[in-house]
Amino acid sequence: MSLTDTACGNAPHIGVLPSGPRGTIADVDSVTVGHCTLDEDAVQTGVTVIRPHPGDPFLNKVPAAASVINGFGKSIGLVQVEELGVLETPIALTNTFGVAAVAQAQIRAAIQANPQIGREWSTVNPLVFECHDGYLNDIQALAVSERHYNDACEAASVDVASGSVGAGRGMSCFDLKGGIGNASRVVDVAGQRYTVGALVLANFGRLPMLTIDGTPVGRVLAERAAEADAASSAALVHPANSAASANPAIPATASKPEHGSIIMIVANDAPLDARQLKRLSLRAAAGLARTGSVYGHGSGDIALAFSTAYTVPHESDFVALPPVLADARLDPLFRACADSVEQAIVDALWSATSVTGRDGHRRLSLHDAAPDLAQLLKQSPR
Amino acid sequence: MSLTDTACGNAPHIGVLPSGPRGTIADVDSVTVGHCTLDEDAVQTGVTVIRPHPGDPFLNKVPAAASVINGFGKSIGLVQVEELGVLETPIALTNTFGVAAVAQAQIRAAIQANPQIGREWSTVNPLVFECHDGYLNDIQALAVSERHYNDACEAASVDVASGSVGAGRGMSCFDLKGGIGNASRVVDVAGQRYTVGALVLANFGRLPMLTIDGTPVGRVLAERAAEADAASSAALVHPANSAASANPAIPATASKPEHGSIIMIVANDAPLDARQLKRLSLRAAAGLARTGSVYGHGSGDIALAFSTAYTVPHESDFVALPPVLADARLDPLFRACADSVEQAIVDALWSATSVTGRDGHRRLSLHDAAPDLAQLLKQSPR
Amino acid sequence: MSLTDTACGNAPHIGVLPSGPRGTIADVDSVTVGHCTLDEDAVQTGVTVIRPHPGDPFLNKVPAAASVINGFGKSIGLVQVEELGVLETPIALTNTFGVAAVAQAQIRAAIQANPQIGREWSTVNPLVFECHDGYLNDIQALAVSERHYNDACEAASVDVASGSVGAGRGMSCFDLKGGIGNASRVVDVAGQRYTVGALVLANFGRLPMLTIDGTPVGRVLAERAAEADAASSAALVHPANSAASANPAIPATASKPEHGSIIMIVANDAPLDARQLKRLSLRAAAGLARTGSVYGHGSGDIALAFSTAYTVPHESDFVALPPVLADARLDPLFRACADSVEQAIVDALWSATSVTGRDGHRRLSLHDAAPDLAQLLKQSPR
Amino acid sequence: MSLTDTACGNAPHIGVLPSGPRGTIADVDSVTVGHCTLDEDAVQTGVTVIRPHPGDPFLNKVPAAASVINGFGKSIGLVQVEELGVLETPIALTNTFGVAAVAQAQIRAAIQANPQIGREWSTVNPLVFECHDGYLNDIQALAVSERHYNDACEAASVDVASGSVGAGRGMSCFDLKGGIGNASRVVDVAGQRYTVGALVLANFGRLPMLTIDGTPVGRVLAERAAEADAASSAALVHPANSAASANPAIPATASKPEHGSIIMIVANDAPLDARQLKRLSLRAAAGLARTGSVYGHGSGDIALAFSTAYTVPHESDFVALPPVLADARLDPLFRACADSVEQAIVDALWSATSVTGRDGHRRLSLHDAAPDLAQLLKQSPR
Repeated sequence: MSLTDTACGNAPHIGVLPSGPRGTIADVDSVTVGHCTLDEDAVQTGVTVIRPHPGDPFLNKVPAAASVINGFGKSIGLVQVEELGVLETPIALTNTFGVAAVAQAQIRAAIQANPQIGREWSTVNPLVFECHDGYLNDIQALAVSERHYNDACEAASVDVASGSVGAGRGMSCFDLKGGIGNASRVVDVAGQRYTVGALVLANFGRLPMLTIDGTPVGRVLAERAAEADAASSAALVHPANSAASANPAIPATASKPEHGSIIMIVANDAPLDARQLKRLSLRAAAGLARTGSVYGHGSGDIALAFSTAYTVPHESDFVALPPVLADARLDPLFRACADSVEQAIVDALWSATSVTGRDGHRRLSLHDAAPDLAQLLKQSPR
Repeated sequence: MSLTDTACGNAPHIGVLPSGPRGTIADVDSVTVGHCTLDEDAVQTGVTVIRPHPGDPFLNKVPAAASVINGFGKSIGLVQVEELGVLETPIALTNTFGVAAVAQAQIRAAIQANPQIGREWSTVNPLVFECHDGYLNDIQALAVSERHYNDACEAASVDVASGSVGAGRGMSCFDLKGGIGNASRVVDVAGQRYTVGALVLANFGRLPMLTIDGTPVGRVLAERAAEADAASSAALVHPANSAASANPAIPATASKPEHGSIIMIVANDAPLDARQLKRLSLRAAAGLARTGSVYGHGSGDIALAFSTAYTVPHESDFVALPPVLADARLDPLFRACADSVEQAIVDALWSATSVTGRDGHRRLSLHDAAPDLAQLLKQSPR
Repeated sequence: MSLTDTACGNAPHIGVLPSGPRGTIADVDSVTVGHCTLDEDAVQTGVTVIRPHPGDPFLNKVPAAASVINGFGKSIGLVQVEELGVLETPIALTNTFGVAAVAQAQIRAAIQANPQIGREWSTVNPLVFECHDGYLNDIQALAVSERHYNDACEAASVDVASGSVGAGRGMSCFDLKGGIGNASRVVDVAGQRYTVGALVLANFGRLPMLTIDGTPVGRVLAERAAEADAASSAALVHPANSAASANPAIPATASKPEHGSIIMIVANDAPLDARQLKRLSLRAAAGLARTGSVYGHGSGDIALAFSTAYTVPHESDFVALPPVLADARLDPLFRACADSVEQAIVDALWSATSVTGRDGHRRLSLHDAAPDLAQLLKQSPR
Repeated sequence: MSLTDTACGNAPHIGVLPSGPRGTIADVDSVTVGHCTLDEDAVQTGVTVIRPHPGDPFLNKVPAAASVINGFGKSIGLVQVEELGVLETPIALTNTFGVAAVAQAQIRAAIQANPQIGREWSTVNPLVFECHDGYLNDIQALAVSERHYNDACEAASVDVASGSVGAGRGMSCFDLKGGIGNASRVVDVAGQRYTVGALVLANFGRLPMLTIDGTPVGRVLAERAAEADAASSAALVHPANSAASANPAIPATASKPEHGSIIMIVANDAPLDARQLKRLSLRAAAGLARTGSVYGHGSGDIALAFSTAYTVPHESDFVALPPVLADARLDPLFRACADSVEQAIVDALWSATSVTGRDGHRRLSLHDAAPDLAQLLKQSPR
């Protein structure tokens, strides 16, 4: 379980809005998350599943919408979400070459639950997002299989782990160890209290870009790495004197283009329709930008927002929505989205543990790369 | 091989533009098509592959763009095509629940050809479109596997079959047997001759909507079916025991909503950039509408256009395009797109043979359903 | 007032759905339309206003969405409609160079009604669509002024004229006289009766493309014109022996690219949200295609759909929607949209009178160009 | 003329990329800018024109594309830019209710230069963006007229003023005086040097959100304002009689929703096609977010990017493009876009002078509001 604000040595709290009690996407009522982590030698990958509600999302579909901020991505399912404004499976995250297996698993699970699918009823729309974890993970092994999706589904609970787990196992972020991050924010709008929760699969960015709560930590770390690189042709950049390492853990010249991506899942319990959820999802781009991203060419940056305030039945003539929030009241939710996405990215870095994967590739955790992180952040007046 | 204009008893020629020599998408230079057909009892499905050029499309990417006319569809790959304007695999068509296996096969094939993928290089973007063939095919059997994609790839040639083959094996169209259709048109623009070729996977529409070259053939057939139905309470509609009926397998009350779809692949050899190809692809909607479609809710209607006039190298600093056609010169290509898509839909109906599939479900071919089709069409002055 | 189905010599009824009592967009409850027509020598233009309801649309906004089928157009207002899903002014149609004056008039009218606009409140979003009527109208004269918008607003009623009136005064369609067209369709969905009404500003197409209810009337007329052209170098193509004419009224070789456009306004009283209205608006493309259009490069083809089933208050915390129709129930409305748009285009041609404008340019009405039109249409079996 | 990095007391330099020599959008070769400023009592507004090249943009159109980040905006012209990927007039900025007059002026100027427009040729697409300056400006006066556009055009030069000038005269930003801002960045890509220049019309944000180069200056200022407000019930906020106050004109409770907007014009001289320019334009959202924006509901946040590397002739059969940059090489340009937009927003605040407008409303400049600004920024380690 991840409580960004208090656990893991106090990550800075982004913005002025308060967090929910867990500091995870599961602060949004009815949302649960499960991970299946594959950690065996060169296989460092996994599957993460977000279940919007405990029921069958095919029978009770979930209002949702997405923003493709940069479309260098290989997800499946967004065409139909854009058209119909609903999810009808749990949301799955995995590595780029695991999408097919996970989608197949979603189809099989839906058929099992509803044997009418593909017969009396229409088919089901799998929804799988991905990032490319090939630096640490032997992605060519196609290690993710259908049962990993099922395992992640069964593991779903309100206790949501962050860091090097699930789909985040092999991910890199700012040349450090990335992975799963969580955060939430609570806002009062029109006399009601709403919770926005974010779960990110963070796998983007080069080290010099890293900005934590406005502090350009990445520049400092990159300069250190460059100095260490200059001082020693052995180029063992581990900051805490990792003499025995055979792999320079921070690339000294992190100037290559990104091959990363970030998936940002934004849950909330406000009564919003699909058009409004699309507006909300785009605000993830603001939180992402504040961590240093400029939505690099090779980064598939996709945000999906869903609401737990109501569901859309599979079979009905009419859909009764609760009164939806007026658009002019959305600003607090927009802010909560941006802040919780930024916080969730920080959480991914904060929670991740260092991982060694294929061909001895190694990503240091932020804490291992910057043992004096607290000091670095304190120098900022905030 | 399909020559719509001359074979199969002379389908009417749509519009005034001439066809290419083959009357298929392979009239566009360098394009080949392969089918893998699964025809065993309740399994009536398959895979169709369109190869834009004989080389490796990952190394030499193909300019492309798509229009989602109605997004009730489960394709994979469109997010990246929209962002980058290129294809990097062959285009694959299959049934809705075959997408995952085919995408996996595309990934494996790309890795095999380029072992740098997912290591030094970024990943590969599979591109698979689908229609729901569950009326004839036991789609829950998940019968499509990776090797069917490979078989279709290997079968690719300029001799392109239409009808109840490949991904079209189990498809229905206007309550008749649908499937793969082909057509092409040749236009002169700015002193140059260009060819537009269309291949459709036609699986949409209810019988009363069917319009062939402006003639509402479907209304006549639906009225006949209704009369036959009224004449006999024995409900001749079930195929297994309706031997004597004139139209034994046409549902008399074809008024249910569509669960269909149509995929429209439009090749051409004009020098167009991705923005222009997106414009071109949308004109498929005009050809589709003229056959009777109103882009029904449950129909995933997607058009993708690509150009064979140039390729985009995987690795390079700059991309040299030939001079592209001015937008003000595109009208003949727009017309060729609409006409060839309409013609290809007619070709799908014209070429398909009657098929019996799961649970004894049967779709009559247009010719079996309307033995007097030539007469019906002749009554129109065109 | 226009009753397409009965007046003007019985235009063919498109499709199988019944028309509403008026056969105009005003069959949708609360919708009114007003025209202001400018007809003085070379000035042949005007303004048409559609009022979604009799109240102030700024205070009670109207759910709406648009589809840009071909964006060669100079409208104002669509950016905000796309974002917020509502209209807040009447919908105005005029010529391309009249947009600015009409938008200014909309702003002034909104300020007058609500002096808080631009002070305590935000600003107002004008919504003006246009077609290029420069063949008949001296568009460079910039003849449309603010008061013409006001006059059209004041003239709004349920008695809606079609033809060479309002914004339609100077418009051409298929090289014939175009203009304003109306139609409506009534459907039963989920136990409720709904009305879809279309008003088009038709200014697109070249003669050989013209198709009326599936009959390629345009080809016949174009052949006649070509023959007449060949027979006489004086090229006086008027079919009914217009000996005195100095202007060939039907261009014999109508092969130039389009500089036209069509605006399609689709009203309905079904409870739909903005996402659904966007889906509905796109079905106008199907009706348009069936008249012969392939959405030519130079034609700004834009459809906007709105619902009168509820309004969105300018100031409120929540918006209470009635239960909205399930997406799976939308097919009858989709069909009604396509049919009423096709019918409205036919109505524009059917209702228009011949007009002579700038530099002696003349557009023949369909009836003047084809006195034997009934005969031409009767040859088709429909 | 604005040299952000050296003039006005050294605004912090955003990011690591170097600025061009002028630090304005005119660092991009051939780009000029002109302002027309209206400053008379309650009329505090104006027009700003960006000319992409010195020639006639109708005859030699400019490749361009836009991203609508938040569509609460009333621009004219984007529909056609999206479809065709070119500009054909200078880009104009003004207040929300000045759009119509400026569009009319653009039409008139185009006709004057090309009398074929609207006759032998198609019409012209005006392109006007706006922000709502109604706090300082009496926007209901509709003070902007056609000649103000012409004056701004004639004033265009490479000496580009920032601050309270042109369309920026009446704009507010973070509850301070906003307006026109400029910046540029130079990058080396694929062995070539390219310049990206940004000009913004900054009119968004509430004070507590203001972040300058990562430093949350706005929070400090807002706290001061709240303290001053608490200390004195005399409500020092009214400008006319608050001489002694340290922060006389900062609203103490800047918690209302935004009614702002920002227009971000991004010029560059790299050879990019329209699809790539659309990608580039979206990166403005990253720079905007880093200043504190979450793209508030009421803020029309629109970015338009154009390239000066080639033009598209009005009449031609083919368009010859130079070799375009490979997408995989775009990251430096993406960064330059984000950085120059962020820098331009800072420049707008840095360059603006305090302005008093309608009803005595007053916006303090950043410098007047924070005389100790240098100190505030120095406390940050950057």
